[in-house]
Amino acid sequence: MQTLFQGIIAYPVTPFTADGGDVDLPRLQQLIERLIADGVHSIAPLGSTGESAYLQDGEWDAVAATSLAAVARRVPTVVGISDLTTAGAMRRARFAEKQGADAVMVLPVSYWKLSEEEIVRHVARIGDAVGIPIMLYNNPATSGIDMSPELIVRIWRDVPNVTMVKESTGDIQRMHRLAQLSGGELPFYNGSNTLAFAALAAGARGWCTAAPNLHAGLPLALYAAVQAGDLPRARELFFRQLPLLQCLMKGGLPPTVKAGLALRGFDVGTPRAPLQPLGEAATRELAAVLASLMA
Amino acid sequence: MQTLFQGIIAYPVTPFTADGGDVDLPRLQQLIERLIADGVHSIAPLGSTGESAYLQDGEWDAVAATSLAAVARRVPTVVGISDLTTAGAMRRARFAEKQGADAVMVLPVSYWKLSEEEIVRHVARIGDAVGIPIMLYNNPATSGIDMSPELIVRIWRDVPNVTMVKESTGDIQRMHRLAQLSGGELPFYNGSNTLAFAALAAGARGWCTAAPNLHAGLPLALYAAVQAGDLPRARELFFRQLPLLQCLMKGGLPPTVKAGLALRGFDVGTPRAPLQPLGEAATRELAAVLASLMA
Amino acid sequence: MQTLFQGIIAYPVTPFTADGGDVDLPRLQQLIERLIADGVHSIAPLGSTGESAYLQDGEWDAVAATSLAAVARRVPTVVGISDLTTAGAMRRARFAEKQGADAVMVLPVSYWKLSEEEIVRHVARIGDAVGIPIMLYNNPATSGIDMSPELIVRIWRDVPNVTMVKESTGDIQRMHRLAQLSGGELPFYNGSNTLAFAALAAGARGWCTAAPNLHAGLPLALYAAVQAGDLPRARELFFRQLPLLQCLMKGGLPPTVKAGLALRGFDVGTPRAPLQPLGEAATRELAAVLASLMA
Amino acid sequence: MQTLFQGIIAYPVTPFTADGGDVDLPRLQQLIERLIADGVHSIAPLGSTGESAYLQDGEWDAVAATSLAAVARRVPTVVGISDLTTAGAMRRARFAEKQGADAVMVLPVSYWKLSEEEIVRHVARIGDAVGIPIMLYNNPATSGIDMSPELIVRIWRDVPNVTMVKESTGDIQRMHRLAQLSGGELPFYNGSNTLAFAALAAGARGWCTAAPNLHAGLPLALYAAVQAGDLPRARELFFRQLPLLQCLMKGGLPPTVKAGLALRGFDVGTPRAPLQPLGEAATRELAAVLASLMA
Repeated sequence: MQTLFQGIIAYPVTPFTADGGDVDLPRLQQLIERLIADGVHSIAPLGSTGESAYLQDGEWDAVAATSLAAVARRVPTVVGISDLTTAGAMRRARFAEKQGADAVMVLPVSYWKLSEEEIVRHVARIGDAVGIPIMLYNNPATSGIDMSPELIVRIWRDVPNVTMVKESTGDIQRMHRLAQLSGGELPFYNGSNTLAFAALAAGARGWCTAAPNLHAGLPLALYAAVQAGDLPRARELFFRQLPLLQCLMKGGLPPTVKAGLALRGFDVGTPRAPLQPLGEAATRELAAVLASLMA
Repeated sequence: MQTLFQGIIAYPVTPFTADGGDVDLPRLQQLIERLIADGVHSIAPLGSTGESAYLQDGEWDAVAATSLAAVARRVPTVVGISDLTTAGAMRRARFAEKQGADAVMVLPVSYWKLSEEEIVRHVARIGDAVGIPIMLYNNPATSGIDMSPELIVRIWRDVPNVTMVKESTGDIQRMHRLAQLSGGELPFYNGSNTLAFAALAAGARGWCTAAPNLHAGLPLALYAAVQAGDLPRARELFFRQLPLLQCLMKGGLPPTVKAGLALRGFDVGTPRAPLQPLGEAATRELAAVLASLMA
Repeated sequence: MQTLFQGIIAYPVTPFTADGGDVDLPRLQQLIERLIADGVHSIAPLGSTGESAYLQDGEWDAVAATSLAAVARRVPTVVGISDLTTAGAMRRARFAEKQGADAVMVLPVSYWKLSEEEIVRHVARIGDAVGIPIMLYNNPATSGIDMSPELIVRIWRDVPNVTMVKESTGDIQRMHRLAQLSGGELPFYNGSNTLAFAALAAGARGWCTAAPNLHAGLPLALYAAVQAGDLPRARELFFRQLPLLQCLMKGGLPPTVKAGLALRGFDVGTPRAPLQPLGEAATRELAAVLASLMA
Repeated sequence: MQTLFQGIIAYPVTPFTADGGDVDLPRLQQLIERLIADGVHSIAPLGSTGESAYLQDGEWDAVAATSLAAVARRVPTVVGISDLTTAGAMRRARFAEKQGADAVMVLPVSYWKLSEEEIVRHVARIGDAVGIPIMLYNNPATSGIDMSPELIVRIWRDVPNVTMVKESTGDIQRMHRLAQLSGGELPFYNGSNTLAFAALAAGARGWCTAAPNLHAGLPLALYAAVQAGDLPRARELFFRQLPLLQCLMKGGLPPTVKAGLALRGFDVGTPRAPLQPLGEAATRELAAVLASLMA
């Protein structure tokens, strides 16, 4: 189980139709087909990149079912099932399991800040609801809740099917701390794009990223170089793709990936309001970065 | 319009049935009846206190309709209509207007951080959707989005039906800045309980608070003392109720208010998971504070 | 003792000679004469405004002795005696006492962050070194050390000659907390200029400020209005002087006060490097603000 | 010049005599002799570890002269010359150069926050004062001033003898950014102990650390493993010494190193007040960690 997910875990965006924002399921299938063809190691539908937070339940179900059917077990899948209520998250987790997900990703999100006890109970109840592994996900910038390494390791010890953690604070020292506290036993994954090289060098099992929507080769090559212990080559590959990763961080994942796919001739619509499409200046910058990576 | 809302604007909790979390509409009616009987100046259903963020759309509609019917125009009403998507917020705003709300309250919430342009468009589209005034609401601790006084005043100037602002950062200097930037023209309301005295002294038109669920007399008396220019009495009244306000801040509004109502023999159920009921120690502390206020 | 300091406590800058930065003691005497003539209630030499941190020990002694001699007990004096080492601070405190200071002000400053125990011992040893009252001073923005209201009240209880506190975080809730924790017994003073109105309304005994170097009348009038319980007039006076207070906060106290005195024809030299004189744009803005206050 | 400093740059503490705090120069010589015998690549007297900020000028001069004489050019030296005033920092830099330092380290410290222009002028004037290279040092936790990678690279381009940077924020992404902005030309050094492995993997030329006072072998081995491209061994070496590095961060460098040297039978006195000796519990923890490293 611990080794099911490793390498580049790709997060597809959720395409919307041009005329007003319905989920575009055929386009989603094509996008997943491209990602698999490009060689990514796993697919993670309905993450932050997938605008999961902005979908109604019916839409969310359709995206989950379509994505899992499109992958068709060719690579492992982990589905983001976060919801503001515990009941809603449990429902989504069960749905994902029934549709064949290999694992679910749980980001505790809330309007009111949650206490540590509230977080533990929330995750434990989701754990009780399914029989597949949970990737616990820490991303205070979007969720407003910051789980310390101590809390993450406690949940990993207490909730049987929590078996992995995705850390997105961008602080490499959190990863060292997770390794230290778990005696190296808790597999951690990197969720902060610009931290990818440091995280893989520190022993991250994989990199959860939206970058493969726009360019899968460089992330895959970086992972391979670190696996091969070739630090100079890994550094060079990292700095080559860093401008793209910085575009993704600065513009936000859904707007930037969607603008980049349009630039590459693959229209997936725009993000859902209140999110707005990537602005003109940022789009020009992205175009230049993408062009330089193709050269 | 500017003077419709002033004084103590009370935020009812949303009662749930004991056996598992359905909205308890009869109890909600009774709670609103009590608040009006206690003399609050306005009622604000579906705020942070009302667990608006944790309700499904059908539940939300029922709470809005029931609350407005229960108030029956005896005092002005402002309904919290926030939703993660602009479309969802517009729908709720229209519904509230149709049911007779005097105004709606808009807190920009989002999973992805919003740019200033995204915030302005979001509010403007809600403004276009209704014909009633909007109270713009800033509360970065829950929403993850902090609107500067400069941005708030810009929105007030640009969006015609934004006519008031509720500020909940707890920083009195933000209120001075709003007054300065608007030439004293933008009515501001305090949303941070422990800031109430300073805010009213600084010229806040009103205090948006859940405290009246547990004790309406002291907030009303504080407002009256400041209106009368009696600083020493205002200070004394403030320090008398400060322990209650601190309980509310420390324990969170829904758990603390619900625990306090239970202590007073008025059961409204518990908050919805992942929120948990107020813990034992905090409940004992709250009981002591409430007892001292009754003495 | 508690009532020795109240009202407007003025912080003179330390004048330097034009040709290169020696302390200009005759100019300092004249500045203090002006402040007393303008009616300030107390004088506080060698505060942040007085560039105390940038003076060598010999210079510091000369400024302290000259200032106290110039005041000649016409108004109470409190001298800032902070130093990076406890021994240095004790030496300065003893010197100030010997020269006739009514009190000393202690801001724990350090290169390495201090623990609460280190802060308590530091203040206690200074307290042991002198027989006059200590005004404990909290200003994390300059000192890098933030003392919580709980710690401040603990020091006030434990160190006999700590009898007052100057709070400069700009957070009015800290002042409420000091009042609450001390049962209203600990006199607190405001050190954040733009918080002056809120602090005085909250019960601050005085306002520690560099503003009287440039305009003493408005701070004095604001204090009088709050004492008289005239909130509308206090608010109006506060908003009239707020642009000046904002200039002081934005440009920094020594550069802004020195530029303002030069604009008023009273040359006191420039701040000591690495501090630089106020820039051109800020000086023009300050000139406009000063002109409007004279109108 | 760029390659003069690489590997492990050791920061000696400043010993004080037991009876009350004079600088203990003979002990300092012995400490430096031990560090050189242990094989460190460079020596950096008068850093944060050396309590530079708490020394009077005469003491500072004696420590600088003694340290440089003790090293006697066997390894390169970089002397910390920070002072609150530009004039004081220039004086120290000239003194260090005259005594034979290979470079000086400049941390902009100040009581008042410095603008970017003030920082640039401060460093430039120090640069003009000496003919040896400057290692610019960023450590907001102690100095209160945070220099962005953009500002650091600007100073490196503008001030001719600024040729290296020591980064101590603990954020690996700052180092990536320095490399990116300078096209890989600006040598950077790690100053955050618990970041050592990530920094060296990212290409840091060296690690500025007080750890060799207590254990030089593990830092030297970590550096060698990264140089050899042996990531698994580097990771293992890092996690072995991490508990020691965490003790240093938690207890503060001077108290922890001085307690650790005493545990190893090499008395260097205690830190200067307001700093206090390491507490009992922390000393026990440190003893256990040191014992485990010797095993």
